[in-house]
Amino acid sequence: MGLTIVVERTTAHKAKPAIDQLSFGKYFTDHMFIMDYDAGKGWHHPRIVPYQPILLDPAAKVFHYGQTVFEGMKAYRTPKGQILMFRPYKNLQRLNRSNARLSIPSLDEGLVMEALRQLIKVDEDWIPAEQGTSLYIRPFVIATQATLGVSPSEQYHFIIILSPVGSYYEEGINPVSIYVESEYVRAVTGGVGNAKTGGNYAAGLKAQQEATDKGYSQVLWLDGVHRKYIEEVGSMNVFFKVGDKVITPALNGSILDGVTRDSVIRLLKHWDIEVEERAISIDELVEAYRSGLLQEAFGTGTAAVISPIGELNWQGDKLTLNEGRTGPVAAKLYDFMTGIQRGAIEDPFGWVVEIK
Amino acid sequence: MGLTIVVERTTAHKAKPAIDQLSFGKYFTDHMFIMDYDAGKGWHHPRIVPYQPILLDPAAKVFHYGQTVFEGMKAYRTPKGQILMFRPYKNLQRLNRSNARLSIPSLDEGLVMEALRQLIKVDEDWIPAEQGTSLYIRPFVIATQATLGVSPSEQYHFIIILSPVGSYYEEGINPVSIYVESEYVRAVTGGVGNAKTGGNYAAGLKAQQEATDKGYSQVLWLDGVHRKYIEEVGSMNVFFKVGDKVITPALNGSILDGVTRDSVIRLLKHWDIEVEERAISIDELVEAYRSGLLQEAFGTGTAAVISPIGELNWQGDKLTLNEGRTGPVAAKLYDFMTGIQRGAIEDPFGWVVEIK
Repeated sequence: MGLTIVVERTTAHKAKPAIDQLSFGKYFTDHMFIMDYDAGKGWHHPRIVPYQPILLDPAAKVFHYGQTVFEGMKAYRTPKGQILMFRPYKNLQRLNRSNARLSIPSLDEGLVMEALRQLIKVDEDWIPAEQGTSLYIRPFVIATQATLGVSPSEQYHFIIILSPVGSYYEEGINPVSIYVESEYVRAVTGGVGNAKTGGNYAAGLKAQQEATDKGYSQVLWLDGVHRKYIEEVGSMNVFFKVGDKVITPALNGSILDGVTRDSVIRLLKHWDIEVEERAISIDELVEAYRSGLLQEAFGTGTAAVISPIGELNWQGDKLTLNEGRTGPVAAKLYDFMTGIQRGAIEDPFGWVVEIK
Repeated sequence: MGLTIVVERTTAHKAKPAIDQLSFGKYFTDHMFIMDYDAGKGWHHPRIVPYQPILLDPAAKVFHYGQTVFEGMKAYRTPKGQILMFRPYKNLQRLNRSNARLSIPSLDEGLVMEALRQLIKVDEDWIPAEQGTSLYIRPFVIATQATLGVSPSEQYHFIIILSPVGSYYEEGINPVSIYVESEYVRAVTGGVGNAKTGGNYAAGLKAQQEATDKGYSQVLWLDGVHRKYIEEVGSMNVFFKVGDKVITPALNGSILDGVTRDSVIRLLKHWDIEVEERAISIDELVEAYRSGLLQEAFGTGTAAVISPIGELNWQGDKLTLNEGRTGPVAAKLYDFMTGIQRGAIEDPFGWVVEIK
């Protein structure tokens, strides 16, 4: 490697928001990490600097051709005062898989981990300790070359910003109502649905907005080919408890390989609950609901961890799950996952990494 | 409207590039147009300022969730010294259709046209006059709100930049070789394929790169559902001459409603050449080729105008079209379209708009 991270500390610390004002991704810490890429030179000049606006040419490719990737991670303050991260290497591996899909040069995962460590330490006073809070970490890459030809950029910024957060949903762990989307499609096999890139999120905004207007929190996405297989819920992976089993869509190339998804599958198996990863049609779910077998549904993701679903609206039919309350599997997963993440429950998997 | 465009002229004019150095989207003029949007306030503060970098918070939504749209237009210097634009209102209408799809607030098309007029006049010395050159115009919208929740931004910039350009392809009007893509998918019905948004272009980079590595200029995209119907070529619409007819994929929701595409259809009909807009499978094309009926293929778009295709590679089979040379229909269209655009041929359709 040989690259040394240069640290320039701020002289003007910002006021920290009150804990009950945090919400999600609204406040940012005093510092950020930034590193540049130039063709022929590679990634270079890694540095921690005061959080500040970035200056880009209006022709920068990120503004025109969406060549971006990002990750979402969290750091937690334990009751004993330690700082923990949850499976950070999984996120960094996925970051590089996203980079490959978007024709962005690969990042040195060891260097990025060291950048995370140093940045979090510099801003460690910003990590909230209250139950349900954490420091959200947003690494991202943007294409900065100022030319309009449609081709991979020859210049990039890799940036990490940090945001103290409360619960992703204002409802907290309370169940959300979900609209099953039949008009819009998020992604399709052969596309970029399994990469964490801006275009996937842009593609979902309109459906999200229309669902919100109808009184729903998120949409449940169906596949783009048959328009019947379950993909994701909002920007989370999704699980269903049907009878004694838990089922979740298989990684088919159009959904995200979620770190929380993988952890939930491993946890359920650890608890001897049968888990199936396979294609799940909306018809199968409706049938399971009618016969009383569909007991729970929940989304999984870094931001919300576990997000129980209280109602599914499928073409006007309202499917109420577990009487609209958080189900026992979702509750147990949420308690265990957040317990491990916050260091309150012993981690049997070696998932948590202490930041020293 | 009531909004007045404020003009701040530069005091430091840039050196203009030599005509043979232009290429595409590499040099930018002395000024740019910018206007801001804030929720509750609407679009405001339209202004022409010296071309300059823009300053954005690293949490700006454009960097994370790809909420962007753009347009591509051209202005031409006629032999008599007039400045002409080609069907600009069609582009502005499409810009607003893209805005609607991406949950971006609508722009006042009259105000944008006035901004284009004033900006082009301020930088009119930058419009090259040589055959094959023009002033490329790039209007675009980016989401600037600095929060990480996945939802439509409450703040935007609308920007117009100008770039004197030569031919899009270094080959000029010479035919290009095209790789028919069977692994990657650009867009699918229900997605954002018919909006001019960054994510569609990001999704195409990897396939483009692999095609380039194999010695091809662009890819021919197949649909994401059946993986057999023709969609677009690179970032252009595509036409085929089969027997006495010209055929092009119908607007199915996943391809762009190209202004050049529409103009070509109207021109062909004007010349009494039969045009069909419908689903076209790759199998149909291969069959037409084998029976000697597939005479020409060409892409259409603002940047390249008409781009003849000399070869199609479909799963290793090389289909050579018109002996690899520009076909008569493509040549006639190119000459007529660029002739109208440059004011060298009288415009029978009322398409050109003089900028005064």
